[in-house]
Amino acid sequence: MDKIKSTIQGIQEADAKIAGLARERMDSLTKPLGSLGKLEELAVRICAMKRETKVSLQKKVIFTFAADHGVTEEKISSYPKEVTAQMVYNFLNGGAGINVLARHVGAKVVVADLGVAADLKPHPQLVDKKIGYGTANIAVGPAMGLRDAEAAISAGMEIFEDEFNKHGIDIIGTGEMGIGNTTASSAIAAFVTGRPVAEVTSRGAGLDDPGMKNKVAVINRALAVNKPKQNDPLEILSKLGGFEIGGLSGAILAAAARKVPVVVDGFISSTAALIAYLAEPKVKDYLIASHNSVEKGHRAIMDYIGLTPLLDLGLRLGEGTGAALGIGLCDAALKIMNEMATFQSANVSQRSS
Amino acid sequence: MDKIKSTIQGIQEADAKIAGLARERMDSLTKPLGSLGKLEELAVRICAMKRETKVSLQKKVIFTFAADHGVTEEKISSYPKEVTAQMVYNFLNGGAGINVLARHVGAKVVVADLGVAADLKPHPQLVDKKIGYGTANIAVGPAMGLRDAEAAISAGMEIFEDEFNKHGIDIIGTGEMGIGNTTASSAIAAFVTGRPVAEVTSRGAGLDDPGMKNKVAVINRALAVNKPKQNDPLEILSKLGGFEIGGLSGAILAAAARKVPVVVDGFISSTAALIAYLAEPKVKDYLIASHNSVEKGHRAIMDYIGLTPLLDLGLRLGEGTGAALGIGLCDAALKIMNEMATFQSANVSQRSS
Repeated sequence: MDKIKSTIQGIQEADAKIAGLARERMDSLTKPLGSLGKLEELAVRICAMKRETKVSLQKKVIFTFAADHGVTEEKISSYPKEVTAQMVYNFLNGGAGINVLARHVGAKVVVADLGVAADLKPHPQLVDKKIGYGTANIAVGPAMGLRDAEAAISAGMEIFEDEFNKHGIDIIGTGEMGIGNTTASSAIAAFVTGRPVAEVTSRGAGLDDPGMKNKVAVINRALAVNKPKQNDPLEILSKLGGFEIGGLSGAILAAAARKVPVVVDGFISSTAALIAYLAEPKVKDYLIASHNSVEKGHRAIMDYIGLTPLLDLGLRLGEGTGAALGIGLCDAALKIMNEMATFQSANVSQRSS
Repeated sequence: MDKIKSTIQGIQEADAKIAGLARERMDSLTKPLGSLGKLEELAVRICAMKRETKVSLQKKVIFTFAADHGVTEEKISSYPKEVTAQMVYNFLNGGAGINVLARHVGAKVVVADLGVAADLKPHPQLVDKKIGYGTANIAVGPAMGLRDAEAAISAGMEIFEDEFNKHGIDIIGTGEMGIGNTTASSAIAAFVTGRPVAEVTSRGAGLDDPGMKNKVAVINRALAVNKPKQNDPLEILSKLGGFEIGGLSGAILAAAARKVPVVVDGFISSTAALIAYLAEPKVKDYLIASHNSVEKGHRAIMDYIGLTPLLDLGLRLGEGTGAALGIGLCDAALKIMNEMATFQSANVSQRSS
């Protein structure tokens, strides 16, 4: 708990003065003012996070955390829970969507087991931080004890710190795998935002209509059975969460404490960002929303935190795939800042009016 | 004119059978069906264009065509027209937005002078296809003669063919530079779509309110003075167009004839795509709309052709900057198709319901 507290206490707001200097530089480049829209804002924000006006993203890391969910007992997913472990091997073999898109943007994928319900074969690229063999079924009781919730957050912090210290990190993306984790995320989204469950629940990996009805009913039961204290992020995580969600919250908090930008993937990742935000609202300064997920709860969480996603490509895969594309845009935005000529250096006339 | 006719006659629809095979492959990959949204559609479309289920984009080329517009006499731009030539040098020196974003996605920029109102210093990377020293002022008469309109389209075809034959091209992006060219584009958009000028006219590089009022009035005068025959693309181009717009129309038609995907940038590029589409509607099968421009006329043209842009980043720079980002997404989409494991190869269980 000391680790969590001290990390959270280390989070400082982004630097408004650096943002001003970065904006000046952006406005001196050979293009009409503001004509690169969100790319300009993105570059300025990242400079303000990192306290530099010339940022180059060399070390890009996507954290893809996996865990299982006891609520799969309630048949809320169209895939069997064995898929969580199978997909971890797929990540390690480089064959999943996140591997392809991470390679595309030059990012490394760090795969960690936060609580897969199977003994995974050791692999040099697999970080073992298993808290348990999946959470308990939230439809009948809490997902995990408070101590396990703390352990999940701490584990995420440690995974970040370890990579940061050993190899350096300039930007992170968040990603996850866990059959059943849209159910946990919808439960958290409904609880925190106060919206009706049906408004924040979608089909996950592809439920049919009766499956959807059951999912909403299960989440309503989970909320009735588990009554977290409002706004206590640790308790919300322990009652309704998942180990991978807790782990990502920890990684996000640790990144913010180190002034590292966090590119948030879709719905599950945004739930982790929400937990982190409830723990320390300043974390928002380091959050970059990558894409608008098809999952309805994602929009609710974005609105709650006050973030606008960069992309709207109809993605709903998770793993960090949207975050990877978002990191590519961050890279592009910073290259604009660093590599474009100024009106002065290129001898281009400024506007006359 | 023979060149234009024979190129247009060579354009064939995309291959629906290949699209079906590509979709099968996409659905066999380790992800829930359709969970990569627009990326999946994009990959399938490109396969159908290129008649292959395994497409790799090695040779990416962005055509950035420059020309001047006589209508700048009417003070419809906040930048002096000298900026067109100055920016051509900036492109050749690698310091403009398009250079940065093209490098980011691994694309080559082919810069051509289609009608800049200045004698440009020869440069090994500058393609000289000057049709004239800028168009005539459309507020008082036609932009160019019919023969010059043909010459502009032919020049664009030649630039494409030359690059295609010498170095090969797997995908193109379109881009442009020309002070005053949003005025020409709004005139064409209003004429073809039938919408009121004010609905398809925006601030270009940054007009103030009186400037905007003047711009709308000038375009209305241009439409009153020039009365093109409805749906005759060559006449529309000659009455209201620009040399760079004609050139891009030619490059787009030539690309479609060679089964090469065309990633269309913003407003000016979409106007060129509209001219090409009026000449041969099958060209639509090869068009990929990269981004939603801030310029209102862009949306009108997208709706008219029936295209949905991939990105919405508030861009309004032109040059091909949005197309470059769009090419990056095409690359990502095809890598998904080529590099992801299948459920079978990765031993991942399929959905149970």
